[in-house]
Amino acid sequence: MEQLFSYQQLFDFARQVFIKIGCPQKDAGIASKSLLSADLRGVDSHGVARLSGYVRLWEAERVNAAPEMKIIHETPSTAVVDGDRGLGLVVAPYAMQVAIQKANAVGSGWVSVQNSNHFGIAGYHAMLALPHDMIGIAMTNASALVAPTFSKERMLGTNPIAVAIPAGTEPAFVADFATTTAANGKLEILQRKNKPVPAGWVQTKEGETSFNAHELKEGGSLLPLGGDREHGSHKGYMLGSIVDIFSGILSGANFGPWVPPFPAYLPMPENMPGKGIGHFFGAMRIDAFRPGADFKKDMDQWIGRFRQAKTSDGHERVLIPGDPEREMEVLRMKEGILLLNEVVSDLRSVGDKLGVELG
Amino acid sequence: MEQLFSYQQLFDFARQVFIKIGCPQKDAGIASKSLLSADLRGVDSHGVARLSGYVRLWEAERVNAAPEMKIIHETPSTAVVDGDRGLGLVVAPYAMQVAIQKANAVGSGWVSVQNSNHFGIAGYHAMLALPHDMIGIAMTNASALVAPTFSKERMLGTNPIAVAIPAGTEPAFVADFATTTAANGKLEILQRKNKPVPAGWVQTKEGETSFNAHELKEGGSLLPLGGDREHGSHKGYMLGSIVDIFSGILSGANFGPWVPPFPAYLPMPENMPGKGIGHFFGAMRIDAFRPGADFKKDMDQWIGRFRQAKTSDGHERVLIPGDPEREMEVLRMKEGILLLNEVVSDLRSVGDKLGVELG
Repeated sequence: MEQLFSYQQLFDFARQVFIKIGCPQKDAGIASKSLLSADLRGVDSHGVARLSGYVRLWEAERVNAAPEMKIIHETPSTAVVDGDRGLGLVVAPYAMQVAIQKANAVGSGWVSVQNSNHFGIAGYHAMLALPHDMIGIAMTNASALVAPTFSKERMLGTNPIAVAIPAGTEPAFVADFATTTAANGKLEILQRKNKPVPAGWVQTKEGETSFNAHELKEGGSLLPLGGDREHGSHKGYMLGSIVDIFSGILSGANFGPWVPPFPAYLPMPENMPGKGIGHFFGAMRIDAFRPGADFKKDMDQWIGRFRQAKTSDGHERVLIPGDPEREMEVLRMKEGILLLNEVVSDLRSVGDKLGVELG
Repeated sequence: MEQLFSYQQLFDFARQVFIKIGCPQKDAGIASKSLLSADLRGVDSHGVARLSGYVRLWEAERVNAAPEMKIIHETPSTAVVDGDRGLGLVVAPYAMQVAIQKANAVGSGWVSVQNSNHFGIAGYHAMLALPHDMIGIAMTNASALVAPTFSKERMLGTNPIAVAIPAGTEPAFVADFATTTAANGKLEILQRKNKPVPAGWVQTKEGETSFNAHELKEGGSLLPLGGDREHGSHKGYMLGSIVDIFSGILSGANFGPWVPPFPAYLPMPENMPGKGIGHFFGAMRIDAFRPGADFKKDMDQWIGRFRQAKTSDGHERVLIPGDPEREMEVLRMKEGILLLNEVVSDLRSVGDKLGVELG
């Protein structure tokens, strides 16, 4: 069913593949590191399993492997970056560095990005701020799969938000979540097991409650965080909308139902109002608010206190955002990454086509 | 059951009450306007019904009616404001003006506030950015009523987030929501009707599912947006935590279970690590990203398209965030504000005590 690979094996393979499609050496390394961070952190749906998808986007000429990314508008604390149709895996770290530079100069930096593509996991980009003693924020829009409250039409992507906050002796707080009840990856797991999904995850194309893990293939939609109005789905809808506007409209990218799809076999939306996919990034220096040591002491107290929160029956501990992913990263870096056989054969066929061996 | 008042009647009454407890004339006007904005927008739990609560906080010497608010730390794009124990209703608009000034100067402004009190509805403060063609952001922490995922202990407040985004010919997009499945105000409505609450709103003090609208009085807790793990409550927990950290830790206010309570009869938490309640505000000039006209044209297209999204059976229209509150404001400004008799007699007894007549 599954095969084990080391991080280094998969990193080297991905890097060679990116070089073969025309990425400069440096970009290929950056792209592979962001891509593989998903596998390390346990977000298997966004990792190396998507490598062939990125290659197909390149084959369809929807991705520019050697983009000339640039700032097209700026103030001391803000910028818009044109990603030149590059891989989001490369464009996002570039834009995040712009945000970090601005935060160094004036306390905070905020960058909206147009003309990009899928950027992997948001958390990786937000975490780039941590070594600078900054809070990092990353979000992106994505092609429409989610119906607003009271609607049966796909209007928003799963539009994730990530926020990374440095601490002192405790590990950093890292939140990274889709603004839907359940991310697409969770659905895929139940599809493979042929199991029903809980209420509040998906609806049919007629807007009716569904427990079918394959509902999206039949025209249905994902539901915003909350599931239905009674459980606060209007809040998930608002969150997804904010991500869409910050990523798509502040930048001049596409938004709402016009965001281009990840699968290269799907047609591009008609009458697209902007350029590519949009992202939004932020960096705030903690010492732009308080002395860094004071902030970190309080963060350690926050984390320590929440770890000690009384648990409900049947639960061993209360998690701090980022705990499961960090623990997974330690484990997988040491013991390797298990890939499903279908992912492995997909990677091998990409490798065969491009002349790269999966070690 | 209910009595009708005009906006002006309630505004004048609140303003006189604030003056009687020692607010400077100008602050009394600012406080009354922010307080009454909740009644106008239909958030009855946060409006004039809370006036007596603010007075009791002043009687308990937990609120300073004539604060000297000031910036205690800043960079070109960030600041920390000390609210000097003032009414949040006054401190928040002050801090928002600081954010707006910084956005005017360097593109965006981000202000964390310590030593404040309850600030009414977040949406009012976020909307202060709109006339400046800026996006406004407001959030606050609050005393602990919410249990993290897997916990039975109250660790976070309902920690609301508001984001106001200008449009062109369309009205502004205004999202304003607690990071719980249901805000406390919704619970109070069901309490008065003696009705059960839906699953996913509250749990017992043992962390078990509850349908009891009075559960909080028995030591239970509110649940984060999502309700339970299967429906994404860890996402609501993350959102509430981010609000807590941005408001409480960036500023040096209290955080988590140490945030002071609104009801003056409740004791203050022990070993408080910071000062008062914390807020966080942001302002981003839209032309710090794109020419304002381009941004507004796209926002109009976004809003127009979402209004036309296909509805599910039984629903007339898809709402844009801010629609219901804006429509309520037009209605109540014209036809008046209905107050429950118990609220009216509470207001009259405050008025009697302070020598102010409810017109």
